[in-house]
Amino acid sequence: MEELKFDANGLIPVVVQDERTKDVVMVAYMNQEAFDLTLKTKNAHYYSRSRRKIWLKGETSGHFQKVKSIRLDCDNDTLLLLVDQKVAACHTGYFSCFYRAWENEWKVVGEKVFDEKTVYKDDPKDGA
Amino acid sequence: MEELKFDANGLIPVVVQDERTKDVVMVAYMNQEAFDLTLKTKNAHYYSRSRRKIWLKGETSGHFQKVKSIRLDCDNDTLLLLVDQKVAACHTGYFSCFYRAWENEWKVVGEKVFDEKTVYKDDPKDGA
Repeated sequence: MEELKFDANGLIPVVVQDERTKDVVMVAYMNQEAFDLTLKTKNAHYYSRSRRKIWLKGETSGHFQKVKSIRLDCDNDTLLLLVDQKVAACHTGYFSCFYRAWENEWKVVGEKVFDEKTVYKDDPKDGA
Repeated sequence: MEELKFDANGLIPVVVQDERTKDVVMVAYMNQEAFDLTLKTKNAHYYSRSRRKIWLKGETSGHFQKVKSIRLDCDNDTLLLLVDQKVAACHTGYFSCFYRAWENEWKVVGEKVFDEKTVYKDDPKDGA
């Protein structure tokens, strides 16, 4: 395959788009292992820069991302996943992490679809 | 405003989505100046990491991105632009830079909408 271009930390940014709504729901990072696990399982895996480990999206919340298509950009240094997003992508309870729009200040425009306190009982970002 | 979180190089990644087709067309980077110019002019400006300067998307090709909405993610470290993409985003002639999909190899699935040789006469990436 064309070689994916990982950065100096061995990571590649990944844009995630829900196939049904076409919403861009998040951006995360993969290393080679996360990419291989994603290909193998068809469930999105990422590399957490803060926790320094692979995570399966949905492992805590159940909000898995079933991967429908993987796209590569012209520079080979960014991926786009088209996914079936279960419930919501964002740990804050919004469907998309991009739930604020600039209208002379950042205003909430996104849809809140679950109560994050009932889903993430401990660390709200652990394995979101 | 909530502070944008720029990285160690003073940059923030920007996902660009065409408002009409909902296609994710590219990912680029902004510094504070590019962000301010984008807000002021409503035309997307980025910071080129290779050329180390601000560029107005479309300055060479005419393929401007009229900004319709600017979204911020939950971590304040990634932006999403909804734009009216003129002609095509990618310097290769495809509408989206994400024109290849993984099907046991990278296969072209995108739509080619212009001949890049007629648009970029010199450096094909200069001011794309």
